[in-house]
Amino acid sequence: MKKYCVGIDIGGTTVKCGLFTTDGELLKKWEVVTRKEENGHHILSDVAKELKVVLNNEGITKDEVEGIGMGIPGPVLPDGSVEICVNLGWKDANPCKEMSELMDGIACKASNDANVAALGEMWKGGGRGYKNLVCVTLGTGVGGGVIMNGEIVNGSHGCAGEIGHMHVNDQETDYCNCGGRGCLEQVGSATGIVKLAHKNLEDPILPSTMEEFGDALTAKDVVDCAKKGDICAIDTIDTCSKYLGIALATLTYTVDPEVFVIGGGVSKAGSWLIEQIEKYYHHNSSLTKHKAEIKLAELGNDAGIYGSARLVLTK
Amino acid sequence: MKKYCVGIDIGGTTVKCGLFTTDGELLKKWEVVTRKEENGHHILSDVAKELKVVLNNEGITKDEVEGIGMGIPGPVLPDGSVEICVNLGWKDANPCKEMSELMDGIACKASNDANVAALGEMWKGGGRGYKNLVCVTLGTGVGGGVIMNGEIVNGSHGCAGEIGHMHVNDQETDYCNCGGRGCLEQVGSATGIVKLAHKNLEDPILPSTMEEFGDALTAKDVVDCAKKGDICAIDTIDTCSKYLGIALATLTYTVDPEVFVIGGGVSKAGSWLIEQIEKYYHHNSSLTKHKAEIKLAELGNDAGIYGSARLVLTK
Repeated sequence: MKKYCVGIDIGGTTVKCGLFTTDGELLKKWEVVTRKEENGHHILSDVAKELKVVLNNEGITKDEVEGIGMGIPGPVLPDGSVEICVNLGWKDANPCKEMSELMDGIACKASNDANVAALGEMWKGGGRGYKNLVCVTLGTGVGGGVIMNGEIVNGSHGCAGEIGHMHVNDQETDYCNCGGRGCLEQVGSATGIVKLAHKNLEDPILPSTMEEFGDALTAKDVVDCAKKGDICAIDTIDTCSKYLGIALATLTYTVDPEVFVIGGGVSKAGSWLIEQIEKYYHHNSSLTKHKAEIKLAELGNDAGIYGSARLVLTK
Repeated sequence: MKKYCVGIDIGGTTVKCGLFTTDGELLKKWEVVTRKEENGHHILSDVAKELKVVLNNEGITKDEVEGIGMGIPGPVLPDGSVEICVNLGWKDANPCKEMSELMDGIACKASNDANVAALGEMWKGGGRGYKNLVCVTLGTGVGGGVIMNGEIVNGSHGCAGEIGHMHVNDQETDYCNCGGRGCLEQVGSATGIVKLAHKNLEDPILPSTMEEFGDALTAKDVVDCAKKGDICAIDTIDTCSKYLGIALATLTYTVDPEVFVIGGGVSKAGSWLIEQIEKYYHHNSSLTKHKAEIKLAELGNDAGIYGSARLVLTK
């Protein structure tokens, strides 16, 4: 094992980069703007250029770097290639091959960004000490990553861990971005919570303090109002928690992890939210008395660079 | 690798046994009655006694046997132990250790019966040629097995692949055997189909030929009536197929297999049923254009002995 590794988390706005020792110490982190023009043609060369500068400044040669891992915001096929990545403009790309060429032959690996975030949380975050976990990221959407025996489950077509699109709600009338209806993302994401709150406000059980926020209402506002006892907000979070609990139970009945790690902006609601979800998770996994733990993610926006770096340390 | 291996599929009524070559040829199969008295104390010794007779008759010594695999009708913990197995009366059992002692030290492995059936279908059945598959068994209940990279995913508490208890139907008012409500088993099993048909018959859209069967109505009758165009039966199978399709889509979004293998008594409805399920599976997995194939199981009741035998050939 060489001394250093690099984690690159490619997002639609910025690329987060981290230089690590192979035992997991973050030495330096930086960001590169995601240039999406010309179908994202410049993204990898921009990153490589900056990375060379960093390695040079740190006095690190390419022979001291174990590898470069990349998290990509879309499905990554088993061979590391990308058929389509809407957020970056990529089509039929082979980012590993390209990055390796740009970096003078340093080994590269890639996986979906939510999957690498899960791996990061296993390595140095809320999932430390576990080898079988599912990470659920409650952000603008709902992302996920499944880790079994310490390795990412990518699936045969790069769709494993896309738990935001599990169908959980048969009564949903609106469409999800994926084209489906009743996806977990429609009730469990920040966007979903706000939408649900507005629906509940149309015909509230009681006057609600959420009304004051009008169209500026955020998921955080809903959580804050619920914590203060607002019945309409409590009802909103209860619905969201119910479907998240059902989703975790379904994950227990499919891959049965040791622990669930909940991250993303919505998870800032903290242990209060975890308890709401846990109640429904336990209720819907009645077949077994062995319940997985539910923990909060710890790495925040750095989960992706940690996990990308960790990716190159697996066989 | 030695020349022979043994597969033991322990059921609540009979224990199915098979002697195989390690390249998968079934040389001999036989059954032993499951003696459940005294908390199933005699089951393994009965099986061992018979197995010794078979090996002796075939002129096979214990040194020529790679191992004995067992499928058990309940959760098996990662160390091969069983906390509780209601169908056999076992409590805090270690069937691998016990069987190995009874068979003079031959190596033993155990897994859940539905999981080993999936492994059997991968080895010599409908899943031949694949390493990532999910097997769904539509029988009295709904069982399942998840295979990734050619190996059973048992899960951290032996609950992986228990897909019959995935919550799919929020509108269900009856309870499932597991204590939950809205489980796949309640709509996708033979029992579920019959129950659903009776509900539909209470207020049929049109007079239905299913009425003639009265309380003797079976899932096969419902399928037969649907194939003949009976609207009420078609509606029943449509509901069942819808939830099965949703469940397959959920499995794509969690483990993303190459292929689904559908077995069990209900699957005798054949490719007609597969097409119904496929329609809903495709509709509910709109995130990806890469769909897993859906195939029929091929080994019938022998899937368990094939898979149990195969179990001892994995690391």
